[in-house]
Amino acid sequence: MTEPLTVDDLTRIRRIPERQRTDRAELYGILDAGLVAHVAFVREGRPVVIPFLYARDGDSLLLHGSTGGGLFLAPEGVEVSVGITHVDGLVFARSVFDSSANYRSVVVHGRAVAVPADEKEAALLVVSEHLMPGRWDEVRASTRKELAATSILRVGLERASVKVRAYGASEAPDDGEDRAVWAGVLPLALVAGAAESSSDVDVPASVRAAAARHVDSGTVRL
Amino acid sequence: MTEPLTVDDLTRIRRIPERQRTDRAELYGILDAGLVAHVAFVREGRPVVIPFLYARDGDSLLLHGSTGGGLFLAPEGVEVSVGITHVDGLVFARSVFDSSANYRSVVVHGRAVAVPADEKEAALLVVSEHLMPGRWDEVRASTRKELAATSILRVGLERASVKVRAYGASEAPDDGEDRAVWAGVLPLALVAGAAESSSDVDVPASVRAAAARHVDSGTVRL
Repeated sequence: MTEPLTVDDLTRIRRIPERQRTDRAELYGILDAGLVAHVAFVREGRPVVIPFLYARDGDSLLLHGSTGGGLFLAPEGVEVSVGITHVDGLVFARSVFDSSANYRSVVVHGRAVAVPADEKEAALLVVSEHLMPGRWDEVRASTRKELAATSILRVGLERASVKVRAYGASEAPDDGEDRAVWAGVLPLALVAGAAESSSDVDVPASVRAAAARHVDSGTVRL
Repeated sequence: MTEPLTVDDLTRIRRIPERQRTDRAELYGILDAGLVAHVAFVREGRPVVIPFLYARDGDSLLLHGSTGGGLFLAPEGVEVSVGITHVDGLVFARSVFDSSANYRSVVVHGRAVAVPADEKEAALLVVSEHLMPGRWDEVRASTRKELAATSILRVGLERASVKVRAYGASEAPDDGEDRAVWAGVLPLALVAGAAESSSDVDVPASVRAAAARHVDSGTVRL
């Protein structure tokens, strides 16, 4: 899919609409950079939010859970709103009001449907390759019992809002700020540390590949 | 408040219940380590999730928004479920099934109520001090117009679920794994980079204090 994202009543950004993005490649990039999605659904009239590990599979999201999880699915699926946010920095403007954060944020509206049994192994492979690239081939195959105890939900990406702030401190031009005060951005990123082994064999390619997704691009050491 | 968290139908962890924590200090620690909350609510029968910057204020959460935001409040407030999750690592077990993530996760169930006008400045101070400690005193005071355009919502912490996984790779003892395969944890952390200045004055104490909340404790440089 390469066409732009649809903007409708559900997906239109209301607050600071100029931060809305409709490029599908940008949506995919934000999703592919994340690990955890916050999945909202309605249970007995109340909102409930639960974190899930996830992966993108083409034009849908796969949410990885267990059959004992809190999201009880009707056969036709359940309506969800899925939030994924990366905080990329704190923006120090010269007033509290203009201070902000840099972020890349996606909200997907859709229906979570259980991946059927005969597609579950392929879906689990996609999730595994996203979280731990190459790990699938380093370990033994999943057993039928393990696959039966695994629940994977699929949510289409037809209706997704993308909101991004990615620039320095801004402020109204004549707003009484003290121009001598420092303004700028403190970047933040999710970074991998040194692998903690519980065995004395060498760290395998999958761990190095997962770490490479979370590279330290020059962090402060205090 | 020091008494343990209440476990009831709403806050009981159903999946892997042994990961539930009821220590209020642990709840506060997880909340104080975070920046963004995913706030779920019900709009016209549908679930909606929106990310908010937040801070903890004693035994409640403050959600920082704007009066133009997507969460339209009735005077008596709106029911919300608020999720905050820190991913602390990827856990490489010797099977895909036993592979996991280390995380600290909070879900708060409550009612979001707008902070009244006469308490808004004090609430904004709490949010500001959490995100950018000391910044409040480095910049000019907020104007009445700015405060009027700021919306802060308060959600009590009476009903909060805390779920934590913080250990190495586990596996069933006789599950066919290849013991020669590496197992362990790849730690992940949100880490501050070098401040990006848009002015040539020295980086102030507030930026150093915010960076100190996100210290690099030994990350991989690839």
